[in-house]
Amino acid sequence: MTSPIQKNLVEKNAGYASHFTKGDLALPPAKHYLILTCMDARIDPAAAFGIDLGDAHVIRNAGASARDGQRSIIISEQLLGTKEIILIKHTGCGMLTFSNEDAHGLVKKNLGPSAAVEIATLDFLPFSNLEDAVREDIAYLRKSATVPEDVVISGWIYEVETGKVRQVV
Amino acid sequence: MTSPIQKNLVEKNAGYASHFTKGDLALPPAKHYLILTCMDARIDPAAAFGIDLGDAHVIRNAGASARDGQRSIIISEQLLGTKEIILIKHTGCGMLTFSNEDAHGLVKKNLGPSAAVEIATLDFLPFSNLEDAVREDIAYLRKSATVPEDVVISGWIYEVETGKVRQVV
Repeated sequence: MTSPIQKNLVEKNAGYASHFTKGDLALPPAKHYLILTCMDARIDPAAAFGIDLGDAHVIRNAGASARDGQRSIIISEQLLGTKEIILIKHTGCGMLTFSNEDAHGLVKKNLGPSAAVEIATLDFLPFSNLEDAVREDIAYLRKSATVPEDVVISGWIYEVETGKVRQVV
Repeated sequence: MTSPIQKNLVEKNAGYASHFTKGDLALPPAKHYLILTCMDARIDPAAAFGIDLGDAHVIRNAGASARDGQRSIIISEQLLGTKEIILIKHTGCGMLTFSNEDAHGLVKKNLGPSAAVEIATLDFLPFSNLEDAVREDIAYLRKSATVPEDVVISGWIYEVETGKVRQVV
């Protein structure tokens, strides 16, 4: 059975594909950078951050966590040649609204003991201060031996209220 | 010092923000679903998959790995109310081109022994068959106690050559 969400995907994609002209782009990002941002529904990275198709890797997870993105960042840089990281967290992030304890409690309550056991050691990586979280993630990237020293790194905040980015570090 | 990539971000974002009218969207995705896809530079999820701003979480990592996305998926569902998962891998994925051994070897060669030690236990999650990888990730999601049984799950492949999606499972 097709859900309304799946139907929307199929219909909108048919429209997209009917005008698609960029079938010959190369696998490695043409502008050799990656953007790491949040999964938040209010962010459209291509439009808001000016990424043309084929130009950059876009990694997205809850909170734009650099730690969570480590595997993808290494693959982006070591296997596909990116040389710059743009980290963008955002105002109103869900990660500001709960603690690890809250999340583990919710999983146990909603999903039961087997789910709680499955993720017993999982760090949900919430944070309590947005700008500090940007600084900490940038520090993590700069300290990690897996990110070469010549990789350019900057940290930003996107305002979901205004559509504007501002640089933090 | 501002890099050309950072300059592009600032300039393109100023244009985006100058026409921005969606500053009052709610934090939870309005259409209660999440898309999990690859970080690949040739994918523009909003355009190709028909996502309007505010409608869906978008999780992206190397290879669209469900396992790698687990933390974000739990947060999306348990804290922000999403009820459907659309998993989309794609043709020409970089994850089809190397093995775990290759990646670990490359890290050691390019970044040295301290980087190799830092990620000694990291699984890069490559795969050798695209459709099988979609099926395996869907099976992983269906099996995980952290994904409720009433969550609708489907698996797709996006063709970077044509801009088209097709359903696998």
